[in-house]
Parts: sequence; structure tokens; C-alpha cells
Amino acid sequence: MIMFKDAMSDEIETVMSAAWKAFYQYKKMSLKSRADFMRSIAIELKNQEEDLVKTAMRETNLTEERLHGELTRTIFQLNQYAAACERAEWVEAAIDTPKPNNKSSHDIRKMLIPLGPVVVFGASNFPFAYSTAGGDTACAFAAGCPVIVKAHPAHAETSEKVANAIFKVVEKSKMPKGIFAHVHGASIEVGKMLVMHPHTKAVGFTGSFAGGKQLFDWGNQRKDPIPVFAEMGSINPVFLLPEKLKTSAEEIAQMYAASITQGVGQFCTNPGLIIGIKGDDLKNFISILAKEIEKTAPHKMLHPGIAKAFDEKREKALHEKNVTLVSVSSIGKKENEGTPTIATTSGESFLNNPLLHQEVFGPYSLVVQCTDQKQMVEIARHLEGQLTSTLMASENDFLSNEELIEEIKNICGRFVLNGVPTGVQVCLAMQHGGPFPATTDSRFTSVGADGVKRFARPIAFQNWENKFLPDELKNENPLKIWRTVNNEITKDAVK
Amino acid sequence: MIMFKDAMSDEIETVMSAAWKAFYQYKKMSLKSRADFMRSIAIELKNQEEDLVKTAMRETNLTEERLHGELTRTIFQLNQYAAACERAEWVEAAIDTPKPNNKSSHDIRKMLIPLGPVVVFGASNFPFAYSTAGGDTACAFAAGCPVIVKAHPAHAETSEKVANAIFKVVEKSKMPKGIFAHVHGASIEVGKMLVMHPHTKAVGFTGSFAGGKQLFDWGNQRKDPIPVFAEMGSINPVFLLPEKLKTSAEEIAQMYAASITQGVGQFCTNPGLIIGIKGDDLKNFISILAKEIEKTAPHKMLHPGIAKAFDEKREKALHEKNVTLVSVSSIGKKENEGTPTIATTSGESFLNNPLLHQEVFGPYSLVVQCTDQKQMVEIARHLEGQLTSTLMASENDFLSNEELIEEIKNICGRFVLNGVPTGVQVCLAMQHGGPFPATTDSRFTSVGADGVKRFARPIAFQNWENKFLPDELKNENPLKIWRTVNNEITKDAVK
Repeated sequence: MIMFKDAMSDEIETVMSAAWKAFYQYKKMSLKSRADFMRSIAIELKNQEEDLVKTAMRETNLTEERLHGELTRTIFQLNQYAAACERAEWVEAAIDTPKPNNKSSHDIRKMLIPLGPVVVFGASNFPFAYSTAGGDTACAFAAGCPVIVKAHPAHAETSEKVANAIFKVVEKSKMPKGIFAHVHGASIEVGKMLVMHPHTKAVGFTGSFAGGKQLFDWGNQRKDPIPVFAEMGSINPVFLLPEKLKTSAEEIAQMYAASITQGVGQFCTNPGLIIGIKGDDLKNFISILAKEIEKTAPHKMLHPGIAKAFDEKREKALHEKNVTLVSVSSIGKKENEGTPTIATTSGESFLNNPLLHQEVFGPYSLVVQCTDQKQMVEIARHLEGQLTSTLMASENDFLSNEELIEEIKNICGRFVLNGVPTGVQVCLAMQHGGPFPATTDSRFTSVGADGVKRFARPIAFQNWENKFLPDELKNENPLKIWRTVNNEITKDAVK
Repeated sequence: MIMFKDAMSDEIETVMSAAWKAFYQYKKMSLKSRADFMRSIAIELKNQEEDLVKTAMRETNLTEERLHGELTRTIFQLNQYAAACERAEWVEAAIDTPKPNNKSSHDIRKMLIPLGPVVVFGASNFPFAYSTAGGDTACAFAAGCPVIVKAHPAHAETSEKVANAIFKVVEKSKMPKGIFAHVHGASIEVGKMLVMHPHTKAVGFTGSFAGGKQLFDWGNQRKDPIPVFAEMGSINPVFLLPEKLKTSAEEIAQMYAASITQGVGQFCTNPGLIIGIKGDDLKNFISILAKEIEKTAPHKMLHPGIAKAFDEKREKALHEKNVTLVSVSSIGKKENEGTPTIATTSGESFLNNPLLHQEVFGPYSLVVQCTDQKQMVEIARHLEGQLTSTLMASENDFLSNEELIEEIKNICGRFVLNGVPTGVQVCLAMQHGGPFPATTDSRFTSVGADGVKRFARPIAFQNWENKFLPDELKNENPLKIWRTVNNEITKDAVK
């Protein structure tokens, strides 16, 4: 294992100065050149696929198949966000021309422009797709922002290799040198220096609540506060409604046994909470789920620290008052493996014990047995913000649970009907982000091309001559993009 | 003068509980019913125009003409944002249908939904347009959020009357009772209780830096941080470029004498800083501006506190090192009036003295005399975030100042060319908001219908049956709104 030295303040100073300088060059470049740059990175990652996957396998214990899939996703993201960058709907171009009968009325034209250098903290559970050349980096490049990646120490070598791939593209495509930087840092000090640096204008983070909240607080404590987009995970409640449960217990149990243990449960969308109403149908569901879990083998977790934390949190949860173990994998666990585990508790105990609302990162889920529908609503009302919530419901269930559905809408960013929350599709309509503490800013997504908007802000140009305006706002609409002209959405030129 | 009692914690508890209850009813109402509600408020304000203007005149010292204009603007905002609410582009409806060849691909549909109850702190300088039924309230109603207004103590009676007009409409249109509340509070404690209340989900504020920053900090210190949109004003720098100054000194001086003293300088877009290059042309400009200012009469400011603060800040600024008084109004000042004042200093002194970067709220402007173009760029680079910046430039000036223009773009939300920053047009393309400390969130506007988005967040529905989806996302597009379907902007139904 290669050891990387933590960045020192002089290295950070150098990196940030270069990023600031690059910002002035990069922000003036066309959307097409940004998109070309992103597509070139995608190609370079593909070229290095074998080596990257091998390195990541060694560092993360993730399977070859999974890592190939994740790299493919990373490449897909870069290409998809590049296409969105060029389509330019994200710049939200809006034009209001002067009213002919009003002498004091002006020509006002607005579009989004980049915020400035963005610091990205990669995720341990996604060494490619949410790390060095992952979603946050791709969004920032599309927005016109230089990126400074703080490598995740759990896959520092993979991160270094991906960074080198980006550096190669920067050089080949003659991009400003400071457009991308990569620093190491196992200590919290490196993160703090990066977030507090005056040239940093936004932060992207995927990881624990403790880590994300700390960065958020630093961002707000600056002389000029900056947005910190921290995706801090959640327990992703699943509500099982009675008729659906009666008719599909086996199917649901199988789906969920797979979802809970997929990737050794190391997904921010892992269903850590299943809520049903006490009775024979729920009992039946639990017993099928229990058997499925028993059959599921433990697997190595991302790194020893995560495996240890899983064991500890799992043990702690199992020892809470009124929590009963339902089943564990019957297959012996080796070192650093996570054992699939299901526990159960009553609705009342869950409502009264906030500790049970906390994420146990790994293949663990808690089944909550409510006394009735009313208690289920009560639980939805008292849950913290979530990335996702899921409803398993027949049509009758749906129609007779309006109150529950309204409560669920209030707490989540994505609302799944009759499915599993794991698997976050990369598309424009995706919302990956939810009310605090799932993320620090529920108004933005970290998956899908709308994530670009995290790193941009509007500027309005008043009474500018046409030739001086950015192409996005010129009368003739040279980029042929969608714009809102005098409140009408159109691709037409301004007359 | 009627004395209003500060709200107590039990009153706030009652108000917030009612708002939370109303939220569940209001969020389900159609965009059309929200828009109708807003239009009814506009009509009611118009009905009460004479009484409202008279009350505001007594409380604010603003002129009858100005207050009629401001009420007209308030009514216009309500109607314009109501229209935007119904057009529904702000919900950013996006639909991705499953890929036919990919079994694991889902149906994902996203739209913006309301955040929850919004607390609005009105502005002392806009008793109608940015207070009780002003921009923030209109945006929150359009977004689907109940509103709790904390009346500004400087126009508490006006605020009470506007609130009563809204209450009347709430009753007549059978809206949920808690959709609007109005509390008084001269003490900081009332504001704190409102911002910290768990049911509060966002805050709108227009006022001083000290006030806005305090609310922002409270919002971030909550167990669940909430967005606080504080518009805290700025000094709105104006850059005079040489050729323009040579040819149009008189015209610019007259425009700016009027802009600086308009409304006794009590606008957040008041040009408090004019930057030129030392020489005969700037000297000429200053002398014309000086004469114009001498001719301009002082007028009563909003309230004695603001008049006192203006005098103190003006005196303090004039006593800073290397600051010279250029001219004051030659017309005698009466009690609580603000005297139009121009001062000047060197570029170097301005760069080295951050105190000169602070707003002097009132009819005051500082002319900075730079040694050269380079120093002007240096000043732009070191300026804090601004709501607006203005460039007075000929075509040649524009073409030979690219570096300056890029710096200016970095610091402001609205970039005016050859005009004055005062007068914020209410239109979709407007951006009223800028980098910190002009506002707490440069990514949003407080003027124009895009301000609605401050109070909403996206939710994605995964694999929902068509009939259960909100109308905005149904296949057949019953509302006939613009949506992005599989990355194409269209009004077509989903096939």
C-alpha cells in the first residue's frame, strides 16, 4: 500500500491560487469546450479501466463486477452531464425586453454563472462514481468551476490514479492547469483548510453525518459563508401497507433481503427501516425475510474501520430496550465482513427511542411493528429527513392512506412506490437529496444533471448591448438553446 | 400612534401550530387556487389603497406619490407571481420514462414542492413591496407555504392593516386559517423564537447586515438548519470608464445625483460608491455632481433611528483618513432629514480601509479616484459581494477593460451597463441577490417570480402509477405546462 502524505498549508495555498487563476479562464470557455473536456475524461477513464478497477478492488474489497459497473456509471455521468451542459437548460436563460409603452422599463437578461473553485470530498463507498471524477466533480466542471479533490484515505491510490487520468486530459486538451487539483489528507485539518480557504466557493461531500455536518458548520462560519452540499445518508424507511403485505409478503421479503444486503449494505439508500402493522401478515413477512437473510453470506466491507463501526453500531442497536434480534446470516463471518442482520421492535419503542432512528451503515434493517395505521402515521411524522422513502401499497392501500402519504412526502427527496430504494438512476428527473439530516440542502440533488446548479448562481445583465452579452443571452440565440423570453419558453431569437 | 405588544412564546406557539396545520391543507391545493388567493389579496389591497397609503405616510415619512407607486408595485408583484405560479415553470417538472431495453430502469418524475411555513421579516424602507404582503410573502404563497410575518416596528400599523386585508381574503376565499399570521415584535427575542421554531422551514428578510446575519446564524444553528434568505444591502459600485466620462460627464453626474438622493437614498441599490480614474475628466464630473447635490433638498428619512444612524455613519466616514467632503446640500436640514452628501478619497486609501466599504444607508456616495485602470481592477477584485454593479462605458471602454468586467461579474448579482442601479424591475429575468454579504444566498433572487423557488425543494416519484401522481407530472399533462420529458422540453403528453 502506498502511503500518501497529508497536504500542508503551503500545498493548499498553491493549489487554491492555481484554481482561482484557472477559474477566470475556465468560466469564459464555451459550454461546448467544457463538455468536450468532460467527455475526454470519460474516454481516458475507459482507457484505464482495467488498472483502475484492479486498484480499487485491492483498496475497497468491492467486487470486480461492481467496480466495473461503477466505473461505467462514472463514465455515463460525465457524458450525460456534458450533454446537459451543452443543452444549457441549466443556465436558466431568461430575457425580459423593455415594455414599449414604459420608458423606465429596462432590458434584463439572466443566466447562471459558475460560483468559483469547488472542493470535493469523495465517498468511501463509491470510489469512482462519487469520488475523484464522480458526480460532484462532473457537475462542477459543467458549471464552469475548477475542482479540488480531497482524496478519500480509504482509496487514496485509486483516487490518485483517477486524478492522474484527469491531469492527462487537462494537459492534452490545453485546459488551464489549475482547473483540477488532488490533495491527500487523512487528518481533519486538511479538510478544514480547504473549506475555509477564501478561494473556495462551494463544497461537495458524500459521507457520514459527523463529517458532513462539520464541513457545513465550517462553511457557515467563514467570513463569507459558502454552500456546503453534504449528502450524509439516511435510513430510508419502507412502509408496508396491509393489503399489499397480505398478497405479496414473499415477493417483498425477497426483494428486501436482496436490497438490504446489496453491496454489503453499504449504500446511502439502504433500507434500514421497515414499518408494518402488527399481525399475522407482518409475522409471515418477517419469517420469510428472516430465512432469506439467514441464507445470505457475509461479505467484506469497504475497510476495517467500516466493518468495526458496523459491528459496534449493530451491537448497540440490538441491545436497545425492546429490540429483538430476528435473524442473522447463518454463514460464518470472517474478518472485516458484515453479517446480514434483521431486528425488530414495537412502534412505541421506536417512537420513544431516537437512537433507533440512527443509521447502522451496513447490511442491517429494523422492522418496526406498529399497533395500527395511526401509529404508522405518527412514525412518519416523527422521522428525520430522508434521502428516500418507500411505500409498498395496493391501490386500496394507497387510497386509504392519504394522511400517511402526505407525511412521507414531507420527509424525503425520493418517494418510491412498490420497489426498493437502492439503485439511484442517473437521470435529469432524479432527486438525490432530502431534508436535513439526509443532506444539508434539500433544494439540490447530487445525482442527475440538475446537480450542476449547485455550483452556479444567477447574474442579470441590465441594458447590455447585444454584442457584449454572453452567447446564451444574445438576441439571435446562437447556441439555439431554450430560453424564457418575456415569460414564454422558446428557442426563437429575440425580435 | 398605536402601540403593539411583542408576541409572547405562547402566541408564537399558537401561530406556528396553526401554520403547520394549514401547510398540510394548502400544499395540496392546486396552483390555480394559490394564484386566485394571491390575486384576491391584490384586489383587497387596491380596495384599501387610500387608507393604507395614509397610514404608511404617517409612519414612514415617505411621500404619497412614492407610497402609491409602491402599493401598485406590490399589487403587480402579487399578480405577476400568481401568473408564474400557474404557468408552473417554477416547479421544474421533469420526467424520465424507463428505457425500453433496460429492465432495471425506472420511471422517475420530479417537481418542486413547498418547504413549509415561511417566516417573513419586512423591510423598513419598503412598507408595502418588501413587507407584509410583499415579495417574500407572495413568493411563499405561490410556492405553497403558509406565511408568518413579523411586523416591522417602524410601520407596525401599516403592517397590521395589510395583515387584516390578507385575513379578510383568507376568510372569504375559505383558505385554511393558519395560512397567514402576523405578529409584532420590537425585541430580538420574537425574531429568534420564530426562526428557531421547529415548524419554521425557511426565512425571508430584508434589512441590515447585522440583522440578516443574526437570523442566518440562528437558522444554521438549529437542530435542523433551514435556509435564511437575507437581503442585507450593498454599496453598489459604479465604475466610470475614461472615454465615457470624457463625453458624458454632465449627463452621468445628473443621473447619479438623482439616483443617490432618490427616496432619500433609502434603497438597497443606492449607488454608494463611484470609481473613476484621477484626472481632469473625473474632476469635471465631480464638480458637476457636487453642484447637483448642493441643489438637492434634504428630506425626512423613514424614522428617527435611521436618520440618526445616517448622520453618525456619514460623520464617521467623513472623518476617515484621506476622505474629503466634496459637497453637501446647501439647503438647511430639519430634524430627521438626511442631507445629500458626496465625499472623495484615493484608490489606495479605499483599498486599505475596509471601513470605507461599508454602507452608509442614506443619500451619500463616495467617489474613489484611482491612479490608473490597474488600480480600478484591483478595487473590483477586493470589493465584497454586491447586489448590483454598474459600468459606465463607451464601446472602446468596454473592449479595453475585459479584466475589469470579469472581476465585476464575480462580485454582483446584477450588472448594469450605462444606467443607474436604483429601480429594481419586477420581471422573471431579474436577479436581486448577490454574493455575501449582499445576501446570504447568491443562488436565489428576492425580486421576480424565480423568488418562488426559494421556498420549494424537489421531490422525485419513482414508479408511481399515473393516477396517483400530482397533476404536474401526469402522463396526459392536464395542466398543459412545460416539462422536460426524457431530456426534451415539451408540453406534449408522455406517450
